[in-house]
Amino acid sequence: MVNFEFQNPTKIIFGKDSEQCLGKEIKKYGKKVLFHYGGGSIKKNGVYDKVKKVLDDENIEYIELGGVKPNPRLSLIYEGIKICRENSIDFILAVGGGSVIDSAKGIAVGVPYEGDVWDFYMGVSVPETKLPVGVVLTIPAAGSESSYSSVVTEEKNKLKRPLDHDVLYPQFAIMNPEFTFSLPAYQTSCGISDIMAHLMERYFTNVKGVGITSRLLEGAMKNIIDNAHLVLDDPHNYIARSEIMWTGSIAHNNLLNTGRIGDWASHMIEHELSAINDVAHGAGLAIVFPAWMKYVYKHNIDLFVQFAVRVWNVEQDFENKERTALAGIERLESFYKSIGLPVRLSEIGIGEEHYQEIASKCRVFHEDDTVGNFVKLTRKDIVEILRLAK
Amino acid sequence: MVNFEFQNPTKIIFGKDSEQCLGKEIKKYGKKVLFHYGGGSIKKNGVYDKVKKVLDDENIEYIELGGVKPNPRLSLIYEGIKICRENSIDFILAVGGGSVIDSAKGIAVGVPYEGDVWDFYMGVSVPETKLPVGVVLTIPAAGSESSYSSVVTEEKNKLKRPLDHDVLYPQFAIMNPEFTFSLPAYQTSCGISDIMAHLMERYFTNVKGVGITSRLLEGAMKNIIDNAHLVLDDPHNYIARSEIMWTGSIAHNNLLNTGRIGDWASHMIEHELSAINDVAHGAGLAIVFPAWMKYVYKHNIDLFVQFAVRVWNVEQDFENKERTALAGIERLESFYKSIGLPVRLSEIGIGEEHYQEIASKCRVFHEDDTVGNFVKLTRKDIVEILRLAK
Repeated sequence: MVNFEFQNPTKIIFGKDSEQCLGKEIKKYGKKVLFHYGGGSIKKNGVYDKVKKVLDDENIEYIELGGVKPNPRLSLIYEGIKICRENSIDFILAVGGGSVIDSAKGIAVGVPYEGDVWDFYMGVSVPETKLPVGVVLTIPAAGSESSYSSVVTEEKNKLKRPLDHDVLYPQFAIMNPEFTFSLPAYQTSCGISDIMAHLMERYFTNVKGVGITSRLLEGAMKNIIDNAHLVLDDPHNYIARSEIMWTGSIAHNNLLNTGRIGDWASHMIEHELSAINDVAHGAGLAIVFPAWMKYVYKHNIDLFVQFAVRVWNVEQDFENKERTALAGIERLESFYKSIGLPVRLSEIGIGEEHYQEIASKCRVFHEDDTVGNFVKLTRKDIVEILRLAK
Repeated sequence: MVNFEFQNPTKIIFGKDSEQCLGKEIKKYGKKVLFHYGGGSIKKNGVYDKVKKVLDDENIEYIELGGVKPNPRLSLIYEGIKICRENSIDFILAVGGGSVIDSAKGIAVGVPYEGDVWDFYMGVSVPETKLPVGVVLTIPAAGSESSYSSVVTEEKNKLKRPLDHDVLYPQFAIMNPEFTFSLPAYQTSCGISDIMAHLMERYFTNVKGVGITSRLLEGAMKNIIDNAHLVLDDPHNYIARSEIMWTGSIAHNNLLNTGRIGDWASHMIEHELSAINDVAHGAGLAIVFPAWMKYVYKHNIDLFVQFAVRVWNVEQDFENKERTALAGIERLESFYKSIGLPVRLSEIGIGEEHYQEIASKCRVFHEDDTVGNFVKLTRKDIVEILRLAK
C-alpha cells in the first residue's frame, strides 16, 4: 500500500424523491443558478419538469444552458462561463450524466479564472477554486457526480483531455434511481461498461499489499455483473437501477483507489477513439479493455488469475495459470457482448488506417510520454493493442 | 436499498511519516491544542515523543490531558471540558485508539454546550457544534477516527452509552501503520474483533436489494480474516498492519452502511458486559456475536448461508441450509479462538447471576424498548443469548 490522502466531501442524497432536497441544498451555496443539461432526454422523461418545479417552488432564480453532447465540448464551456459572468451566477446545477457534469465542472472552474479554462486541461495551469456545483444524476456511468475529474473535448484538434483536481468535487449529488428508468438499453450498457472500467483501471496495479481495495473492487465488479442483466431485462427494476447507480459512484469516488496506483491506459486510448468518431465512451472501453488485457496479462499473470477466479468465478486450473487468466478475459468480453456492446474496432468502423493517429494522440503532452502505469505503453504498444481489437 | 444521505468529511492521511502533516492540518483549525491521550503506551512506543516534536517544531501551543482508560469515563470528559474552557483551547488532538478519540469527541461537543454533556449521550439533547478534532490513530479497532460516534461510560451507574451525530466526525485522521507495531497481541486481536463486529452489525439487515454494500462488507471481512494471523505472527508486518488499520476505518465510516439498516444488538449487549467487568470491547464482542447468531439465524437463514459461503468459504450443502449456516457461525467462533479471544462468558468470569442485570441495562432509555433491528430482542431474548454464550 502506498501512502495516500483521501477526503471526498461530496454529499450524496440517494433514493426516491431525493430531488425534493434540491432547494435546501442549493441555498447553502448560492442564489442564482446555471441550470445545465444535455439534449432532450430530461425533457422527455420528466426530470426537467421536476427540477424546474423544485426550483420554482423554492423561488430560486436560474438561467438555462442545455445542449451538452456526449464527449462535452470546450465551446459550450466557454459559452457557460460567459453566461455566468454576465449574469452574476454563483451556482452551477448539472442535471444529467457524466458529460453534463464534466461540462458543469469546466464552467465552474472557468468562471473565477482569468486565463483560458483549457489551460487546466492541458496541464498548463492548476485550478485554485470553482463555483459550487450540484448534481442531479440521470445516467450512472462516469462517476463524475462524486469525483474530482472532468473530461472535455477541444473540437478543433479533436483533443479529449482529463482534468483531475480536488476542487472539482461537486458539493452534492442527488441520485434518484427512478430518473434512470427511461435510459435506453444501449446507454445503460455503456454506463455499465464505464463503471466496470473505472473498477478495472484501479484493480490492475503494480502496488503490493492492497488487499482491502482489491476486495472492495472485486465486490463492486461482481455487483455490476450481478445486476447488468436484471436492469436490461426490466428497465423499471428499482433495486437493480439503485445497485448500478450507487456502485457507479463508489467506483469512481477515489476510496477504492486508496493506497494503489491505477492504470488508466485503456481510458486514454478510448478517449482518442471517441474523439475520432464519437463512439460512446462505454462502448469504446468494451473494445479497448479486453485487447489491453490480452496484451499485458503476462506482466502479472497472478493478478489476472485472481481477477478470473474472484470476479468471474472461473474454476482455477492450478496447472495452467495462463488458461485461467485468459478465461477471465474471455468472460469479460462475453459479458460485453451479452449486454449488446461492440468488442472490435471493425464494429464501429475504425480501420487500421487510424491506429497510428490514435496512438499518437493519446501520448499525452510530450512525444516521449508513455501511457498507463501497470505497463507503460509506447506508441508501438498501443498500435499492437488496437490490432488485437481489430 | 433504503433512501440515505452520506457525507463523510474526515480527511485521511495514511502511511509512513504521515504524522509530519500534523502541524499543517492543526493550523487550519486552531491555535491552542488539548493533547489528549491514554495510559503510558504512547510514551513507551515513541508516539508521544514524535507528536510532541511535531507540535514543538511547528510552535503549536498545547496542554496535555492523559489518563483515558478503555471504556472512557465521563469524569475525565468533564475535566477536559473544564481545562479547555479555562485555557481558551480551540482544538482537540486525540492520540490513541477509540477510547481516546471518543473521549476527545465528548470534550469537543461539551465545550460549546451550556448544559451537561451527558445529556447528549442520554438522548436528552442534540449537539449542534463542537471544537475541531484531529486524530493520530494508534489502535485500529473502533473506527472512531472517521466515524460520527462516541461511546462513553458514566461511572456511578455503570451506564455505557453511544452518541451518534454528524458533528462528531473528526476533521482529520493521521494513520501511520508503524504506530501499531507495538500493540500487544491481545489488543491487536480485540481490535480485529471490533472491526469484524462493525462489519457484521451492518451486514445482518432486513433491507433487501443491498447487493453493493453486502459485497463490500464481505470483501472487508475477508480482508480482516486474511490479515489477522499475518499480523499476529509478525507484529512488524507493515502491509498486514496497514490492511487492518485502513479496513478498520472503512468498516465504520458509514459508507458500508449506505442504504441498509444495521443490527447493533451485539454491540448494545456487549456495552453492558464491559460496563460490568471492564472486559475489552473486542473480547466481549467475540463472546456475544456467535451467541447472537445462534439465536437469530433462522430469521433469515439465506443470509447466514451467504455469510458462510462468501465470507468463510464454507462449501454449501444445497440440501441443508441449516448445516451451511451453522458452519459459518462455527468458523467465526473458531476464528476468534484462533486469535486468542474468549468466546464464553465463563471465560471472563460473568456468571448467570448477571444475565438479568445485563439484559435490563441494555434496554435503552425505556422499559419497553427492544434491542437490535435484524431481530428486535426483548429482555428475555437477551437472557437466552447470554445463556448460549454461557
